[in-house]
Amino acid sequence: MPDYDFTAPRLFVDAPLIEGGAVALDRSQSNYLGNVLRLGAGDHVLIFNGRDGEWQAAIEGRKRPDGLTIRQRVRPQDRLADIAYVFAPLKHARLDYMVQKAVEMGAATLTPVLTRHTQVSRVNGERMRANVIEAAEQCGILSLAEVKDPVPLERFIRERPGSRMLVFCDEAAEIADPLQALRGGSAGGAGIDLLIGPEGGFAADERELLLRQPHVTRLALGPRILRADTAGVAALALVQATLGDWGSRAG
Amino acid sequence: MPDYDFTAPRLFVDAPLIEGGAVALDRSQSNYLGNVLRLGAGDHVLIFNGRDGEWQAAIEGRKRPDGLTIRQRVRPQDRLADIAYVFAPLKHARLDYMVQKAVEMGAATLTPVLTRHTQVSRVNGERMRANVIEAAEQCGILSLAEVKDPVPLERFIRERPGSRMLVFCDEAAEIADPLQALRGGSAGGAGIDLLIGPEGGFAADERELLLRQPHVTRLALGPRILRADTAGVAALALVQATLGDWGSRAG
Repeated sequence: MPDYDFTAPRLFVDAPLIEGGAVALDRSQSNYLGNVLRLGAGDHVLIFNGRDGEWQAAIEGRKRPDGLTIRQRVRPQDRLADIAYVFAPLKHARLDYMVQKAVEMGAATLTPVLTRHTQVSRVNGERMRANVIEAAEQCGILSLAEVKDPVPLERFIRERPGSRMLVFCDEAAEIADPLQALRGGSAGGAGIDLLIGPEGGFAADERELLLRQPHVTRLALGPRILRADTAGVAALALVQATLGDWGSRAG
Repeated sequence: MPDYDFTAPRLFVDAPLIEGGAVALDRSQSNYLGNVLRLGAGDHVLIFNGRDGEWQAAIEGRKRPDGLTIRQRVRPQDRLADIAYVFAPLKHARLDYMVQKAVEMGAATLTPVLTRHTQVSRVNGERMRANVIEAAEQCGILSLAEVKDPVPLERFIRERPGSRMLVFCDEAAEIADPLQALRGGSAGGAGIDLLIGPEGGFAADERELLLRQPHVTRLALGPRILRADTAGVAALALVQATLGDWGSRAG
């Protein structure tokens, strides 16, 4: 993204964005702009809501920032490639990190799946959404990944549309060219579900279930063991470069 | 890596490994095995030194683990692809993380380079080495990445062998298929230097200098801004899959 100023303060606001419109700031946003960034009336910020593109807005407020006046649109809304990141959740800080990385890498949907060897049974959806917003604010992202409720793996498989491609990162797969696997894979034409398992690996019956699905591509990520968050970024890089928006179709 | 037990306790030891040999444990290793893992005399661990492969060893010691007897080799030594990860260092915890991820991804060398916009001027080499060992222990890696001293970018460029391929991840490059760029790039035949810049980007004259180098390939990592540690993992995934040991040449 050439020439994009990623040092400019950037805020997600949950409000419609139109020229001349006004946006109220909540307390944490006001605190962030006024006390952390030391901005005041007349200073500019960039705002986005995930639907209406990115806008320049001017800070209003006598003592501290309490609202914004929307000036002009600086970037049109974009659309993410239809890539769902489906993953066994990790604990606390590592889950925060995994979510932020998946957002940077352009996942459109985040779906936690509970597998036999998943070490986490409860997932804080609000915290995941806050991490999505933080990563989008920091990285100039305009389309927010949707956060789904956690679901057991078997139910996820039963309920997903069979027309989607299922890219299954399998630590037990023989080493084989992952780019060839992705390019030669059977694309269902209705988006991609990219599945990253737990660090304990999949159970044998889970693996069998996954390999029986239509449009399944089994992906090997090299000869070394990767931690789950590393595997997520690596697999998203390969999927974006072969089938997503990093290649010639982008821009 | 099918069938590799990555729950087994694994220790790096800086000693020659031969059948029947003895290895002394330092205090932190003894504490880790005895107090953290609650292992004692007769229990087995896996050990490696970065040169002689991986060995099974038995814990010795009356009150607490104070040595190991080397039993048998369980994996031969491997070699990493000649990929140097050359990066503008980050601060503290994010540098730890970046080093660990580069090791997981199979970088053979880690070289911090200081650029105009690098926010860090001092790099703790001992801490980087400790992170290399920790990542190798956790992820079943047998070959330890070599940690180089920090060097200014201009000097790095002047002193590197011009026969190496220079993969330059440039946030200002137009979006273009990164796999095509890597496959079509001019490989010097003497390994790969993968360069990840600072989060403030490269200065204009640094970019010009880089683009003048022989065997340079400019890499675009998609339409979104990536944080430096994310860019590192993503770029290593693409390089390993096209030119490194993730493809058909592996295993």
